[in-house]
Amino acid sequence: MSTDNKKDVSCLVILSGGQDSTTCLHWAKRHFKEIHTIAFDYGQKHRIELKSAERIAHHAHVLDHETIDMRGLMKSTSPLIEHTHPVGQYKSAEDLPGGIEPTFIPCRNILFLTVAANRAVVKGIKDLVIGVSAVDYGGYPDCRPGFIKGMEDTLCQGLEMDITIHVPLISMSKKDTVLLALTLPGCMEALAYSHTCYEGAFPPCGKCHACLLRAKGFQEAGIEDPLSGDPSSNSHSK
Amino acid sequence: MSTDNKKDVSCLVILSGGQDSTTCLHWAKRHFKEIHTIAFDYGQKHRIELKSAERIAHHAHVLDHETIDMRGLMKSTSPLIEHTHPVGQYKSAEDLPGGIEPTFIPCRNILFLTVAANRAVVKGIKDLVIGVSAVDYGGYPDCRPGFIKGMEDTLCQGLEMDITIHVPLISMSKKDTVLLALTLPGCMEALAYSHTCYEGAFPPCGKCHACLLRAKGFQEAGIEDPLSGDPSSNSHSK
Repeated sequence: MSTDNKKDVSCLVILSGGQDSTTCLHWAKRHFKEIHTIAFDYGQKHRIELKSAERIAHHAHVLDHETIDMRGLMKSTSPLIEHTHPVGQYKSAEDLPGGIEPTFIPCRNILFLTVAANRAVVKGIKDLVIGVSAVDYGGYPDCRPGFIKGMEDTLCQGLEMDITIHVPLISMSKKDTVLLALTLPGCMEALAYSHTCYEGAFPPCGKCHACLLRAKGFQEAGIEDPLSGDPSSNSHSK
Repeated sequence: MSTDNKKDVSCLVILSGGQDSTTCLHWAKRHFKEIHTIAFDYGQKHRIELKSAERIAHHAHVLDHETIDMRGLMKSTSPLIEHTHPVGQYKSAEDLPGGIEPTFIPCRNILFLTVAANRAVVKGIKDLVIGVSAVDYGGYPDCRPGFIKGMEDTLCQGLEMDITIHVPLISMSKKDTVLLALTLPGCMEALAYSHTCYEGAFPPCGKCHACLLRAKGFQEAGIEDPLSGDPSSNSHSK
């Protein structure tokens, strides 16, 4: 999980097309030589984010971007993939019984990191980047340092290779993430292309947990969200 | 990785249709209340094993059997999925540079266990069974106790649940596995339906690493392989 400067090696960024992974991609551009990106089509309702990921990868001049089709591979009652279930509107996972959001898909991040590691090995890459945060994590257990450490160890053991999972946002609130984005060249522009709304709506619904978290982060940072600015300045209207 | 008796709970067995997973399925029938099985279509050359898995599951009266389509999800130069590459013939991984068989597919077992864990959670199951062995493991790093322990920890962390990965064959040679099979009701019959050959051939090619290992195990145990007996007694000829 160390994030030493590795300007002599390439990395693979898991790019969902959302705010966090977009910020991670630009963080990676600062720390690594060349960037590869990977996105996952797991049957998510908000498919608009796959298009966002493509545009953000192109805008960042990555070496290659791959969208992996894994529709139907994961089962869950999560409204993110079970489209008959409403996403629901609530402010934080603390309001929920059990403390885990109903949007949680069991094993999603394990699967993403596993397939990413497979592609990394094939490309000769040993550094993965994922935009999980243990602060505003919505009760997802697979966004915590203990999980990331376990996953890193498992990949090292299972591949007999030194794989590193970089998690630059692991200790950051959404506000911190916005402030980090401000320091990364091109990142705020890229965020105009990013997608966050769990309803897959544009303009964003403004009511789902993801929308509320994003809005709170920009508000606390005192920055206008480029996504909510002049519609003519972002990709969604083009 | 503990294998205490759990006759009051159900388990999910990863069933490839080969000798080891068939033996594990029958081991699980002894230790668990009800058995679910899962097989993976990852584009393997020896697709005959998927049919074998179905038949073996049916023969064992499992509660349900699912074949999961994940063709194209993993990339590798392994001849198991890259069909233009010959499997090659050699006696042991020790003969190979690096000590890892060219049939190794990076992250295959991680992926199998991850998708199996997703299905287990949906079914309310906390016990997974996989037929890996660290003895006759062909240099695969994802067949060793350290990997299994890491994977188990990762699943527990990532799901916030007590998941157990049972590996009854982890310390067994092929000979030991044959001797175990002899003690499990119905297992030797089931092995007549199993498939091992890396070439996907029937009758088995008898030359690939998998064929040689299987033959050695039965020979050392002093038992005739039910697969190599009277063709009219096994499924392949029906």
